[in-house]
Amino acid sequence: MRVDVVGNVNEVRTIDIAGRSAVVIDVLCTTSTIVTALAYDASAVIAVETVPQAKQMEVKDCIRGGERFDKKITGFEVGNSPYEYMTAGIADKTIILTTTDGTRALIKASKGKHVFAGSFLNVQAVAAALCELQRDVLLLCAGNQDEFALEDGLCAGCIIDELHRQSCSSLQLNDLGIVLHQAVSQCKESIPELVQGSVSGRRLEKLGRVHDISYCSQLNLLDCVPEMGEGNRMQPYRGIRGGKMFKLM
Amino acid sequence: MRVDVVGNVNEVRTIDIAGRSAVVIDVLCTTSTIVTALAYDASAVIAVETVPQAKQMEVKDCIRGGERFDKKITGFEVGNSPYEYMTAGIADKTIILTTTDGTRALIKASKGKHVFAGSFLNVQAVAAALCELQRDVLLLCAGNQDEFALEDGLCAGCIIDELHRQSCSSLQLNDLGIVLHQAVSQCKESIPELVQGSVSGRRLEKLGRVHDISYCSQLNLLDCVPEMGEGNRMQPYRGIRGGKMFKLM
Repeated sequence: MRVDVVGNVNEVRTIDIAGRSAVVIDVLCTTSTIVTALAYDASAVIAVETVPQAKQMEVKDCIRGGERFDKKITGFEVGNSPYEYMTAGIADKTIILTTTDGTRALIKASKGKHVFAGSFLNVQAVAAALCELQRDVLLLCAGNQDEFALEDGLCAGCIIDELHRQSCSSLQLNDLGIVLHQAVSQCKESIPELVQGSVSGRRLEKLGRVHDISYCSQLNLLDCVPEMGEGNRMQPYRGIRGGKMFKLM
Repeated sequence: MRVDVVGNVNEVRTIDIAGRSAVVIDVLCTTSTIVTALAYDASAVIAVETVPQAKQMEVKDCIRGGERFDKKITGFEVGNSPYEYMTAGIADKTIILTTTDGTRALIKASKGKHVFAGSFLNVQAVAAALCELQRDVLLLCAGNQDEFALEDGLCAGCIIDELHRQSCSSLQLNDLGIVLHQAVSQCKESIPELVQGSVSGRRLEKLGRVHDISYCSQLNLLDCVPEMGEGNRMQPYRGIRGGKMFKLM
């Protein structure tokens, strides 16, 4: 199984995605937020590229959420902190979500055979889905305004580590994948501290959002794997046989 | 001291370089070749971007060298294997060098206050020069046809590791720098094997150039730090006080 890691959205080409399982990773906070919203029983999250598109979209029982450069969008009900999605009010609602880097990466990945949202929160579950599908994998780190982001890279490294652990056939990694796997082997115990020291971590800390960093740095808290379907609509992956894939946590 | 690592030539912007010490890293093989040629007493290496420019350049006592996509250039005396530069015939000659990624990266870095060529062969010496200068640092990995290359990234990680070891003031690393430093802490003992398994390593192995990979993967073999001056002319860095910086090996 080939596993290629791409360091930011701008580096991905269509050829990298076609026929593959693609995992989009935007730890702070898009993909952590999506998996949280679905774990709290949102009926779906629709990834939307622009603010006007999100405003115009008409969906029954919807909530509009997202950010531009860390600021909540005027007129939207919620921002992009996962904590805003941990309420009973989210159940059975469709979230229309647009963010600076994360939703753009999801839409760019939409040519993949399967497109998942990955985060520290669901590493084991994502790896299990990838092993089940047995397709070549693209791990697409959303990055930070077109630059490599530490938290996304380390999450990619954790997914590779977990693929090894689940003995998921032999893995051929690209150069960035090898480096990230090595890095995670060194620092798996100190991920929360490293994420806090990253560019995004320091930016969120200045905004008083240390609780978001701490939450999003937790490994394997949730067993939900958001999968993108028609109309960029994300819902929990049900596995090849349908039904819940399996209970991990 | 800020230390930023850039993963490939295309990601560098002028703003990253101005006023800094820049280290260009193209382990296989441009920067390894340059430091070897100067260690074998070539009088200078001139980095040239295009083949026609290299052909037209008129310099006394010169040797033309380089490659395009790993092939020696027609009419040039030497290719880009460091072994071709380990001869008495190289002494007092000016090398006119053009390569696919490495010389392009050097020229792109020429806006730096100081521009050095880094490789595994001269990690300690490069770090000593950077500590002496006490400027912010850009480590520019040449990469592999606009993609991140494992060997260049690990070399950047080794330079960061050595800056720490030489207690070179407190370092503020960017996200890629943090990851590469973590990776090197994990795998410093197995660098030759990792480089052999990289995209460039496997490509050179297919061309029967395992000896080049082995040579270029050696840490701290040489104490020469090539520095780029007027006309992209590279000569050994002599230190702030002039004269040989110091003897390391």
